[in-house]
Amino acid sequence: MTTGPVVGIIGGGQLARMLAEAATPLGIHVRVLAAPGDEGAAEVVPDVVIGSPGDAEVLRSFASSVDVVTFDHENVDHDLLRELEAAGVAVRPAVATLEYSDKAHQRRRFADAGIPVPDFVVVDGGSEQDVEVVADFAARAHGGEVVVKTSRGGYDGRGVWMLDGDELREFVGGWGGAPLVVEPKLQLRSELAVLIARRTSGEVASWPVLETVQVDGMCNEVLLPAPVDGDVREQARRIGERVADVIDITGVVAVELFVVDPDDTGPRLLVNEIAPRVHNSGHLTIEASATSQFEQHLRAILDWPLGPTDVVSAAAMANVVGNGVDEPRSRQALALAVVPGANVHLYGKAPRAERKVGHVTVVGADLATVRRDAGMAAELLSGVGGSVP
Amino acid sequence: MTTGPVVGIIGGGQLARMLAEAATPLGIHVRVLAAPGDEGAAEVVPDVVIGSPGDAEVLRSFASSVDVVTFDHENVDHDLLRELEAAGVAVRPAVATLEYSDKAHQRRRFADAGIPVPDFVVVDGGSEQDVEVVADFAARAHGGEVVVKTSRGGYDGRGVWMLDGDELREFVGGWGGAPLVVEPKLQLRSELAVLIARRTSGEVASWPVLETVQVDGMCNEVLLPAPVDGDVREQARRIGERVADVIDITGVVAVELFVVDPDDTGPRLLVNEIAPRVHNSGHLTIEASATSQFEQHLRAILDWPLGPTDVVSAAAMANVVGNGVDEPRSRQALALAVVPGANVHLYGKAPRAERKVGHVTVVGADLATVRRDAGMAAELLSGVGGSVP
Repeated sequence: MTTGPVVGIIGGGQLARMLAEAATPLGIHVRVLAAPGDEGAAEVVPDVVIGSPGDAEVLRSFASSVDVVTFDHENVDHDLLRELEAAGVAVRPAVATLEYSDKAHQRRRFADAGIPVPDFVVVDGGSEQDVEVVADFAARAHGGEVVVKTSRGGYDGRGVWMLDGDELREFVGGWGGAPLVVEPKLQLRSELAVLIARRTSGEVASWPVLETVQVDGMCNEVLLPAPVDGDVREQARRIGERVADVIDITGVVAVELFVVDPDDTGPRLLVNEIAPRVHNSGHLTIEASATSQFEQHLRAILDWPLGPTDVVSAAAMANVVGNGVDEPRSRQALALAVVPGANVHLYGKAPRAERKVGHVTVVGADLATVRRDAGMAAELLSGVGGSVP
Repeated sequence: MTTGPVVGIIGGGQLARMLAEAATPLGIHVRVLAAPGDEGAAEVVPDVVIGSPGDAEVLRSFASSVDVVTFDHENVDHDLLRELEAAGVAVRPAVATLEYSDKAHQRRRFADAGIPVPDFVVVDGGSEQDVEVVADFAARAHGGEVVVKTSRGGYDGRGVWMLDGDELREFVGGWGGAPLVVEPKLQLRSELAVLIARRTSGEVASWPVLETVQVDGMCNEVLLPAPVDGDVREQARRIGERVADVIDITGVVAVELFVVDPDDTGPRLLVNEIAPRVHNSGHLTIEASATSQFEQHLRAILDWPLGPTDVVSAAAMANVVGNGVDEPRSRQALALAVVPGANVHLYGKAPRAERKVGHVTVVGADLATVRRDAGMAAELLSGVGGSVP
């Protein structure tokens, strides 16, 4: 028998898993719609429906069994979701918000709304005209090399290419996928993320801005506090809240920011991209904040009062990345022997190479120390230091 | 497929539920042996075996499917557990430790070991000789009124009686259950609890001593820091570690202490009773300590390195007690509106009157504030303030 609210999560990965972890103490019942073979949530959530969210009948039946629908990932057909909304299902965030997962849509709307974004052009690709547009963009202002991103379906550095010259022309001319967003390769001072939560009735809460450290386009580490001045932090918060407003988010949105300073006149922030959901950059809020992004997301989509977002002095999160050989779930004792204060989070996924299979957060007084400790524990879990019997 | 360690928990109540919550991020697989109708863990743990731990075949089969057996409650036949131990099953804590759940055994052994305990006698009850022993004990030194406790099966104030005179004689003469422990009714200054964790290989960790506030024999609130001097805290820690050693605990043990001062010469500590497991008095460690009692227990029974036990400035836990009418799982938004920083923990149990169905922890800088907030949120969840549609 279920007596509290029932939250339906589409997708069964680690975000669903950590949402379920936050739901349990609150007495919120979680039901997950997972694809066959999805790892992460199914191992720890009793109420899992196996099926494809692309199957209209499966999705309708799932949605009708819960009080509110939310997402582990955004790879869901928007037309099907619009049907649910039309039928009165609480889809949170709404489909109109999820459309911002499309990088082309996102860039155009943000530019229109006056939110600072990098220079860009959007092309479909596959035509000589598009090749000329992109080549012209590359040559005109940016010395030739550009970043080309597929507008849909990319993640963790996948779907992003650095190209110039003939390679760029060939790529764009031969492209047949979703529209491409093309932007200059910027010199970045650093990258930041700001997380904002907004509930149906409008209340907004944000956490202090974080630094994200990327390796090969994949977020590798997240650091608190971000190494920027107070006015930059305030600017990040304002941009984040403006984004939350423009996309009309219900729940948590992660806004990833580039810090640039092309003229050495001081740091400027540009919105790189957003994720209209809980996000890797916010995992450290589990230990570092009075309210985690996962609990806050649940509170927001249920239209409950949001929680305080006070944070500790310093925190660092490092991802545990599979090496294809070692099993992090047999290496916890090793990691905890070296870093007793490590907060280990494993997602129950097979440790395929280059796959995020967990993360470690360490909190403390000093950023350098917690960063070193988090990184060391994550490496030990990943397989550095040899096999454990 | 399960790749990490598998912990088997006997009993499916809230302690199993919160152990499972701590196990999930660590990639520890939890399997629960729950009685039919057990509430608490079954709702949130996918791997639940329904069966009675009193059924030898059920227990053997369950034990053989896990790496280590631990407990949500101690109501398990010790002979069956000894059979498991003899067969090489890792039962943690060991049966010899679980025997200390028997209050008569506990008192005698602690007195023998020089651990300070209240004056006491143990009688079987049901004979004229026992009546005389108890009446003599009551009259001799303690003004007539005594506390009579059944040595086994009591909890939360059940199985404890305050008696004197003819009533005492009739009770003891008519008693036919487990042996009775009889002790003076002490004037208590306060009650404390100290939690100790000890792993197989001997490493010990303890949290700062806590104050427990009892109402009608049931722990109602837990406060950190305890309002006692540094030397009393140190004395509590030493007694706790001595208890952990004497009972040879593997895992967490909660040691409940009376603070008395009969001669106004300064506070003295007496061990009231112990629980060889995670305990209500330690629930606030989830938010108030770097390592919760639940995670620490798992680390200890798996013989992993123990975690740091640093705590916040102030924390208060208040139990959510059922009123038989209102459903806490529909009252979270109300409680969070009044106390946004409340850490709500609901156990998924039907809110029968006088039943613990959840708890709330609030952390902060000032004990008076967090105590007021935790109490208010717990009352709102319990049903104070009327029904929620």
